[in-house]
Amino acid sequence: MRIDIISVLPELLESPFSHSILKRAKAKGLLEINVHHLRQYSTFKHQQVDDYQFGGGAGMVMMMEPLVNAIEDLQKQVAYDEVIYLTPDGKTLDQRMANGLSLKGNLLMICGHYKGIDERFREHFVTMEISIGDFVLSGGELAAAVLVDSIGRLLPGVLNDETSALFDSFQDNLLAPPVYTRPEDFRGWKVPEILLSGDHRKIDEWRHDEAMKRTKDRRPDLLKKQ
Amino acid sequence: MRIDIISVLPELLESPFSHSILKRAKAKGLLEINVHHLRQYSTFKHQQVDDYQFGGGAGMVMMMEPLVNAIEDLQKQVAYDEVIYLTPDGKTLDQRMANGLSLKGNLLMICGHYKGIDERFREHFVTMEISIGDFVLSGGELAAAVLVDSIGRLLPGVLNDETSALFDSFQDNLLAPPVYTRPEDFRGWKVPEILLSGDHRKIDEWRHDEAMKRTKDRRPDLLKKQ
Repeated sequence: MRIDIISVLPELLESPFSHSILKRAKAKGLLEINVHHLRQYSTFKHQQVDDYQFGGGAGMVMMMEPLVNAIEDLQKQVAYDEVIYLTPDGKTLDQRMANGLSLKGNLLMICGHYKGIDERFREHFVTMEISIGDFVLSGGELAAAVLVDSIGRLLPGVLNDETSALFDSFQDNLLAPPVYTRPEDFRGWKVPEILLSGDHRKIDEWRHDEAMKRTKDRRPDLLKKQ
Repeated sequence: MRIDIISVLPELLESPFSHSILKRAKAKGLLEINVHHLRQYSTFKHQQVDDYQFGGGAGMVMMMEPLVNAIEDLQKQVAYDEVIYLTPDGKTLDQRMANGLSLKGNLLMICGHYKGIDERFREHFVTMEISIGDFVLSGGELAAAVLVDSIGRLLPGVLNDETSALFDSFQDNLLAPPVYTRPEDFRGWKVPEILLSGDHRKIDEWRHDEAMKRTKDRRPDLLKKQ
């Protein structure tokens, strides 16, 4: 998979893509990530990429021209399956969407900043608008990092244990059951005995019951999705 | 505000906290962020912090001892308003929660990794469990970065224009209206004339109508929250 990202703050994305899972995915050749600096596509003085919004009001808007230069230059090299704009009014990211995107070949992500990007770019170039949640961030970079991570870890061969991602929260619309590790007793707080029993059928049942209980308690809305 | 973060991958958080809004917040003395490496609190060989889960199954679990050592050491120096664990089964972050947290003084955030942290730590030390959305990430670091960004930009004096954050999506349970900037005409795609009219009352009305329309169309659930 190849992911290109257009950003005015590419340096913000340096460390998230250089460690852990994504580092491994890149090292194994399973994922190529290229972050492109939007300013390099500006033909304006001081590599300007934003301007005041028409109609007045606080906050700058990212201009058409640098964005269009960037996307048209990249599209000469790559055919993108989706051109994704990260925006609070996009479709809310969930595990199902991440699963779907992990099956694509080439993705282009646009990170907004300030008040957002010119609406005409959204209308004419963007194919998919994604929000990571009902909150506002300083820019789309962290949202892109989250999206890339949620997708990247699903690529076959990226996680050490291929079964591991399948049992995560949300893959079956259930929250994960509680987990415990050594020691069995910490300051008198003990691990549930069933987990020490060695009876794998009973342990599976217990985990399923706990997952159901936790989901009913915390996220009953997920059960309706099943 | 002071935010401490406990992580097994502190290097992942370097660039998100060194640029843009959060850099400015730190430079102005409005926000102090300290990332603590969990391994330094391990007394085990090779600074081990995780172990196999009781009951079997894929994925490692973060152990009690290093986490307890870390929090008890930090609590000697700081009284935390909340001890937050970033986890997919936590309460879903929204703008209201970010607003509330931006009023606190000291926050401690725990980043899980692998299969998560020992349940007993959640029961006995964590005061608030937050999920940034219904998807799974490689670890809690990016979720913590998102949470810190969503809070940090709300601190008075962090954004250049103090009115700016108030008009973001979600602050009034409405999505933001479309924005446009120069040029008025790009390849025949024109800015709505009303925005060029100079009639601010009409522009405000248009923006409110567009915000309503967009919210009804994309997120009718938000309107029910009002």
